Amino acid sequence: MSWNKADAQVGVIGLGSMGAGIARCLLRGGWNVHIYARKPEVAAAFAEAGAKGHTSPESLGRACDVVVLSLPDAAAVESVLFGPSALTEGMKSGGCVIDTSTIAANSAQEFAERLATHQIRFLDAPVSGGQAGAEAGTLAAMVGGLAEDVDACRDLLAAFCKTLTHVGAVGAGQTVKACNQVAVAGAMLGLADALALARAQGVDPTIMREVLLQGSARSFPMEKHAPRIIEQSFDPGFRAHLMRKDLRLALETANASGAALAGAPVVEALLDQMCEHGRGDWDWCGVAMEVGKTAGRDS
Amino acid sequence: MSWNKADAQVGVIGLGSMGAGIARCLLRGGWNVHIYARKPEVAAAFAEAGAKGHTSPESLGRACDVVVLSLPDAAAVESVLFGPSALTEGMKSGGCVIDTSTIAANSAQEFAERLATHQIRFLDAPVSGGQAGAEAGTLAAMVGGLAEDVDACRDLLAAFCKTLTHVGAVGAGQTVKACNQVAVAGAMLGLADALALARAQGVDPTIMREVLLQGSARSFPMEKHAPRIIEQSFDPGFRAHLMRKDLRLALETANASGAALAGAPVVEALLDQMCEHGRGDWDWCGVAMEVGKTAGRDS
Repeated sequence: MSWNKADAQVGVIGLGSMGAGIARCLLRGGWNVHIYARKPEVAAAFAEAGAKGHTSPESLGRACDVVVLSLPDAAAVESVLFGPSALTEGMKSGGCVIDTSTIAANSAQEFAERLATHQIRFLDAPVSGGQAGAEAGTLAAMVGGLAEDVDACRDLLAAFCKTLTHVGAVGAGQTVKACNQVAVAGAMLGLADALALARAQGVDPTIMREVLLQGSARSFPMEKHAPRIIEQSFDPGFRAHLMRKDLRLALETANASGAALAGAPVVEALLDQMCEHGRGDWDWCGVAMEVGKTAGRDS
Repeated sequence: MSWNKADAQVGVIGLGSMGAGIARCLLRGGWNVHIYARKPEVAAAFAEAGAKGHTSPESLGRACDVVVLSLPDAAAVESVLFGPSALTEGMKSGGCVIDTSTIAANSAQEFAERLATHQIRFLDAPVSGGQAGAEAGTLAAMVGGLAEDVDACRDLLAAFCKTLTHVGAVGAGQTVKACNQVAVAGAMLGLADALALARAQGVDPTIMREVLLQGSARSFPMEKHAPRIIEQSFDPGFRAHLMRKDLRLALETANASGAALAGAPVVEALLDQMCEHGRGDWDWCGVAMEVGKTAGRDS
């Protein structure tokens, strides 16, 4: 069986830049949307758009079949699921929680196990595509969970996702999101090195980029971020302190499973440096400015 | 003025996998080709194809207007240019040396200065595209030197290059090649981390790759190298010990100009590890197998 927009009651908790976009996509798509918002002005705006407001996760849970979370970290997810006036106190057995937050894979697994004791299903569905993708409904979701639960939520996820890939069991969605973040971090590190070398040697970085885009050094950061770095235009985008959070999660997951990563710790350290110098709200591609500043390599 | 195939006598020195392909492109293109080959069988094969053989760089230099070098390192270039029976002892003033070898930018600058005392012009023109590109005449050249010298050699370079970008003064070609190698090394490092994380977490690396190719983590290594790493198929390609050589050159150049790179030293160390364990003749993408082996991160 699959949730459909005629019958299903869908909750959204976490109405920040991502969650608000997701809730608006669901409303536009004709779903019955419930929200829990602490800020009265947020609640009022969504009430006007047709969402039913609730004063606690418990109350929202009582009304809903499926609940989408978009929260900053695992502590916030845990509080909504199991804290005071929790979702689990209200939600019926057979319901489903879809967590679009970026948290550790083992947190996702732990939450899934605890929800199972309430007969509540769980999918980890971290997304990429940013605020613009959430508003436009063009996010890419990496989904971990049981195939039957993924299938049941497919139509609902399609309201805010362009692509949805079932990547494995619960936690696998978070792992693939973490893989994405370490992979793009590495490509950014390569770009940062190339820009530092060109600068130090007095070669025009724009010409360098044009040549490199034609060959084996092409990458998304080379294509999209390099012009911003060359112009030193660091309006976010995706903020440096959030990328640092994502890399820390990836490193914790890697460590917990006995894998030593090689590039991500270097980028994490550079992001630390950025945040310490008050540039944590810059777009994370500003990390390239941390490379090449001093001759410090031991040979 | 520009060298043309009707009049110009063109020498090629260094008939390894790259240089042999370049010489064959020139012959196919109808240029008058001269070679210097120490191995009789190589000399014989090229003589049959229409090239004029010489017994020393000096003799070749006496006969040629332009000489293309394709040599393993700066020491080999120096020996051909200035060693016993050197090119410079034979070559007329006004001639031009085009060095397609990958060497340090400051070596290129030094050779250019020394050649200038003989009134011989110099372009550094490192190439990318590999052996297949050399055979097919589809290399990409990054050329440093005077604009008038680049223009004079444009038709000749077009015999073996699909694209030719004039990137700056002498040495700039080598710098851009070095930028390419550090940029692709970073992207490979990100890919290696992502694969190590997926492996450690039991996520299918092929599914992970498919998801990542759709978003911000896409890169040439993600597209072209990931399938080979997943299948552990490491036939070269571009050998690990050659990539190590290129990264060392890039790091020396960066150090000499006071820039500390962040990602390239990590990849260099992993390539060292590969070479020390007898895997220097694997394709360099095997470097991904060096990542994630042990939990060794200090937190």
